[in-house]
Amino acid sequence: MINQLVNKIKETGAPIVVGLDPTMKFVPEQIKKKAFDEFGETLEGAAEAIWQFNKEIVDNIFDVIPAVKPQIAMYEQFGIPGMMAYKKTIDYAKEKGLIVIGDIKRGDIGSTSEAYAAGHLGKVQVGSKFYYGFDEDFATLNPYMGSDSVKPFIKVCKEEKKGVFVLVKTSNPSSGEFQDRLLADADNRPLYEVVGELVAKWGEDHMGDSYSYVGAVVGATYPEMGKILRRLMPKSYILVPGYGAQGGKGADLVHFFNEDGLGAIVNSSRGIIAAYQQEKYASFGAEHFAEASRKAVEDMRKDIMGALENR
Amino acid sequence: MINQLVNKIKETGAPIVVGLDPTMKFVPEQIKKKAFDEFGETLEGAAEAIWQFNKEIVDNIFDVIPAVKPQIAMYEQFGIPGMMAYKKTIDYAKEKGLIVIGDIKRGDIGSTSEAYAAGHLGKVQVGSKFYYGFDEDFATLNPYMGSDSVKPFIKVCKEEKKGVFVLVKTSNPSSGEFQDRLLADADNRPLYEVVGELVAKWGEDHMGDSYSYVGAVVGATYPEMGKILRRLMPKSYILVPGYGAQGGKGADLVHFFNEDGLGAIVNSSRGIIAAYQQEKYASFGAEHFAEASRKAVEDMRKDIMGALENR
Repeated sequence: MINQLVNKIKETGAPIVVGLDPTMKFVPEQIKKKAFDEFGETLEGAAEAIWQFNKEIVDNIFDVIPAVKPQIAMYEQFGIPGMMAYKKTIDYAKEKGLIVIGDIKRGDIGSTSEAYAAGHLGKVQVGSKFYYGFDEDFATLNPYMGSDSVKPFIKVCKEEKKGVFVLVKTSNPSSGEFQDRLLADADNRPLYEVVGELVAKWGEDHMGDSYSYVGAVVGATYPEMGKILRRLMPKSYILVPGYGAQGGKGADLVHFFNEDGLGAIVNSSRGIIAAYQQEKYASFGAEHFAEASRKAVEDMRKDIMGALENR
Repeated sequence: MINQLVNKIKETGAPIVVGLDPTMKFVPEQIKKKAFDEFGETLEGAAEAIWQFNKEIVDNIFDVIPAVKPQIAMYEQFGIPGMMAYKKTIDYAKEKGLIVIGDIKRGDIGSTSEAYAAGHLGKVQVGSKFYYGFDEDFATLNPYMGSDSVKPFIKVCKEEKKGVFVLVKTSNPSSGEFQDRLLADADNRPLYEVVGELVAKWGEDHMGDSYSYVGAVVGATYPEMGKILRRLMPKSYILVPGYGAQGGKGADLVHFFNEDGLGAIVNSSRGIIAAYQQEKYASFGAEHFAEASRKAVEDMRKDIMGALENR
């Protein structure tokens, strides 16, 4: 799957993943109206609205990007119907040839991580049969509990040829509160570097052709740290959130890429899926929101590729 | 809800939470057979089996414990049907008067944590209406992303009078990999102490009568650290996993309690729910598995209370 991700990035020329993180305020009125007419103002109605919203976006961008990243929280908030919309979104995106990164940020003690890994990336046994639960291609992980919370995922990734992205340095303002702490027992280097080194080490154990199946999450909002982490994890793909709405710019992103122009995939969520709400794309109107998303992807691609050419 | 938890612990004399973490190998054959006869060896069949298993356990222990803690991973592994069993388990436990701690270990950037908080502890808006998604009473959180990943939960907790338990020092063998690192910028104290101090600070902002709504998770397997953390977070309830199957004993637990005999609630999962599979409780047989669970709760209560009396 990491080889497939690299190939699709090369094919599309777009090291971009679109975050399918729908909230009701991003969904155009015509979609909400139709869903509420059918299901009422209920959790089922909300789930139908976000699913139809996602579907139209996927239909308009599947051929210009390699991957989508649904943020499971945005579905979990709508309870069971929301989870069903999450699963439908995964299945539909895969049907359209997209790679799906489940932004689930799970991680627990070993036996519990085994269950998460089985449910999201692998199969679970029921009697004599085996079933895929959610079946994403990649998942994001939270490493706070250490190696034995991550390794069950890597084991499943090997069996399924799937991958993970481990949180190393996140894009949010308070990410430094713990992640930037200087470790007296590691030559006063920050925690995120030590986590990054472990990501590289875990990855050695599960390599694709040129990159490992164990990637890292490093926020676009911290380009200087990205530069250091790029060096520390040369074979790990970096999933870079924080572009656009959170403040990251194309020029900030060059440090996340290797010399081969690969090694990073940049996420944008509301910058793409709610593009029609920006002044820049207002001319599309709510009716054509998904075409605005396609245009926003093209602009993002140009911004990143321009920055890479000028580095 | 923290007041209610404290009251129920006093009433039952049992600072115990039972982890409803069903895996297929814990579920007795008769329950599996019935579920598979009805739904086949499918995800629906597995979900039905774990739900019936949970129900029988809850029916047998609801009057002797204050709370249950379903581990969501054990349900997520069975996909959507599993999530439905999670929700049914929550609703049923609450109906029986139990407090429900959702062991979800979520945490993300602010806007995403808002969605998790809405879905698990609060309400989500759909048009003009508001709905509860999963509606647990407490949730566990992963703090790796810092304050702005935790605060949206605290905001919802204030509105809903609910609470959280933040991972501080987890029970698993590799928890020290990051959590024990000594921080040069905090007088060489370990990371878990700094996280614990923040838990205490967050809790000041949301106090019940005698304890705060912001608790901590500290593993029974690290009693010496528990002693220090008890002092650092005097007003925070400590949720203590790792008793029993993971190796923690009653005598290890005394450090997690305050002088008032309160301040900690100890979790046991497979030690209770799969008690019938232990030699000690084998005489109950698979038919009476839930009575074995009740006996195991009683024994656990005696073990803890005995240790507290002898300290």
